[in-house]
Amino acid sequence: MAGASKKVNAVIGQSGGPTVVINQSLVGVVYGLKKMKNIGQILGARNGVRGIVNENFVDLTRLSKTTLERLAVTPSSALLSSRDKPDEAYCHKILAAFEKHDVRYFFYIGGNDSSDTCRIVNDLAKQAGYDLTSFHVPKTIDNDLMENDHTPGFPSAARYVACAFIGDNLDNAALPGVKINVVMGRHAGFLTAASVLARQHQGDGPHLIYVPEQHFDVDRFIADVDRVYKEQGRCLIAVSEGIHDKEGTPIATKLAQGSAEKDSHGNVQLSGTGALGDFLADEIKRRLSIKRVRADTFGYIQRSYPGSQSPVDQAEARKAAHTAVQYAAKGIKEGSIAIKRKSNKPYKASFELIPLTAVAAKTRILPSDFMVGDNDISDKFKTYLLPLVGKLPIVERL
Amino acid sequence: MAGASKKVNAVIGQSGGPTVVINQSLVGVVYGLKKMKNIGQILGARNGVRGIVNENFVDLTRLSKTTLERLAVTPSSALLSSRDKPDEAYCHKILAAFEKHDVRYFFYIGGNDSSDTCRIVNDLAKQAGYDLTSFHVPKTIDNDLMENDHTPGFPSAARYVACAFIGDNLDNAALPGVKINVVMGRHAGFLTAASVLARQHQGDGPHLIYVPEQHFDVDRFIADVDRVYKEQGRCLIAVSEGIHDKEGTPIATKLAQGSAEKDSHGNVQLSGTGALGDFLADEIKRRLSIKRVRADTFGYIQRSYPGSQSPVDQAEARKAAHTAVQYAAKGIKEGSIAIKRKSNKPYKASFELIPLTAVAAKTRILPSDFMVGDNDISDKFKTYLLPLVGKLPIVERL
Repeated sequence: MAGASKKVNAVIGQSGGPTVVINQSLVGVVYGLKKMKNIGQILGARNGVRGIVNENFVDLTRLSKTTLERLAVTPSSALLSSRDKPDEAYCHKILAAFEKHDVRYFFYIGGNDSSDTCRIVNDLAKQAGYDLTSFHVPKTIDNDLMENDHTPGFPSAARYVACAFIGDNLDNAALPGVKINVVMGRHAGFLTAASVLARQHQGDGPHLIYVPEQHFDVDRFIADVDRVYKEQGRCLIAVSEGIHDKEGTPIATKLAQGSAEKDSHGNVQLSGTGALGDFLADEIKRRLSIKRVRADTFGYIQRSYPGSQSPVDQAEARKAAHTAVQYAAKGIKEGSIAIKRKSNKPYKASFELIPLTAVAAKTRILPSDFMVGDNDISDKFKTYLLPLVGKLPIVERL
Repeated sequence: MAGASKKVNAVIGQSGGPTVVINQSLVGVVYGLKKMKNIGQILGARNGVRGIVNENFVDLTRLSKTTLERLAVTPSSALLSSRDKPDEAYCHKILAAFEKHDVRYFFYIGGNDSSDTCRIVNDLAKQAGYDLTSFHVPKTIDNDLMENDHTPGFPSAARYVACAFIGDNLDNAALPGVKINVVMGRHAGFLTAASVLARQHQGDGPHLIYVPEQHFDVDRFIADVDRVYKEQGRCLIAVSEGIHDKEGTPIATKLAQGSAEKDSHGNVQLSGTGALGDFLADEIKRRLSIKRVRADTFGYIQRSYPGSQSPVDQAEARKAAHTAVQYAAKGIKEGSIAIKRKSNKPYKASFELIPLTAVAAKTRILPSDFMVGDNDISDKFKTYLLPLVGKLPIVERL
């Protein structure tokens, strides 16, 4: 058993889709653990839970402040990632590795699938009577964790999407036509909704925004585009990769005609293909007499583009992780950290302990007051998002 | 006729694909003209030559320094753009509009198609005995203007591509698989080649780089991917949108099956579709037993993403434009400005007067010593590009 007099070890893992601030959380955990007198080794598990099972650890105990600060601003998961969903046999191997390396603290940085992994490992440790402190540290560009005002990773990805739309709106104004941009987001439209920040002056796009919280109907979409194009002479559109018909079938899955790849959490591949954007562009070309129709799919760059992180996001990703360690140091045995907004002007947040079960395998979606009809986003969402993304680039017009 | 004692007017236009520094050039021309005592009005033509014909001008004469400096950092063409290729009748209308508004100076900011437009207008003015000073100011992310070491717009787009690959290389390392990124570039592979800057440590991608200067063979491509994936357990690939078979037919055009859209310069649409990336990904999935295969197409964001311009590019875009005005002020009647590199360490460039015919409708491609075989880029190209893109984001590894 871990006692105050005996040193024990800690494991940190990163899991799921990387973000540009997930290493801030890694560094936040490391700084926190360095302050705990009963911690011997701080071990990083390479490739999430898989690194635990394979005992593939990197020793983080003696990393210098310089290295840690450089690591913190490096995009993607420095410990590499995993989409493994451990079953009971897998979890037994994790516990065996923990026992072998005298690991009594486990911090897992990830989204809702990863928090569920953390919960499963924690439950089995309890059943086995193995003394383990397990914390989930929130991370996801999807912003879809329950209990959280927003999640580390989202503000920076939202900033990328907003900036991309700011630039593309001006590009589309210069050479008018219909332009579709497909944004990440399987079930939650937060990231697609972030495109609304590009709308700063009369006539600015995106003129239409489609999120997975609403049913997507191709006929209605074509009618929307027709109307906007006739009014504005151009049309800039934001579309979530996860848009689906009224039966709930994603449009992207229908295009993949059954050949779609699934990950271990049962998710069908939506990203890394331009098929959805191309399908919508082709429909517009076919049904409306508009010559210039283009589609871009933002893809993985929106979660990995370096050098334009949101400063709020960087600070919060670190703080959320650090808070988890502080609770662990106080003897709290398990939980997740949720970001709560205390005030909007000036922006202030607190970091609160919540049960693992409150976030594990659950999905938060856009609240209805963040949406307007089935093709737009409200000013309330803008007010919500603006304090998170940092100062946006200057735009001047003639 | 324009005399030293009488004030005349000047027109500035922006043409072709926008860049994130094309407004630096606009501002450079305006500052230059403000210093010329014989200039009355400085007119911006909206939508390039079309704005001249339609007499759709915006008066830039009295813009404040604050507005001009804000404009300079705004991406895309503030005067909007055009892909019109004027024929003789169109040119007569341009001259008629110039005469009506007493325009004796014409500055056209654009690429090789736009420099050809500038040349055509200039030739017709000479034939008609209309006293006109015509300057082309270089701009293109493609970096494909003859006589130029590089072109304004390219360093910033190259910076975007390098940064995107830096992030995506780390993302692909965290969740391994095959990842294809399609980069803009019809005939010239400079922008795709810029991805090589992401290769900083052993094992970094891009592992394969395909440019339009080489014939693209799908069988050879599959063999390359197979080899890299077996060696590295992953494979990050950069592909130009303009890659073509040994007959010179772009792969993207073959996929479009004759339905491809053409612009007024006869160029087939390559951008704004994910078809090429998806085709290559599907071929890999079909022919190799690799599960995780993804394709992203960088699209229009690479020429419009705000807030991460190259400082060298910003300064040079302005300087090239300013130099054109200085030559015009000295009484030189026509020309284009070329950037020549004077030294690499420290980086130093000069801005030289060249004839319009030296750039008009001509295309520069990657020199052979910038390529290695048919799937890689040389260190010589890295040395060439590095001084242009500014400081790259920090990357730390464990």
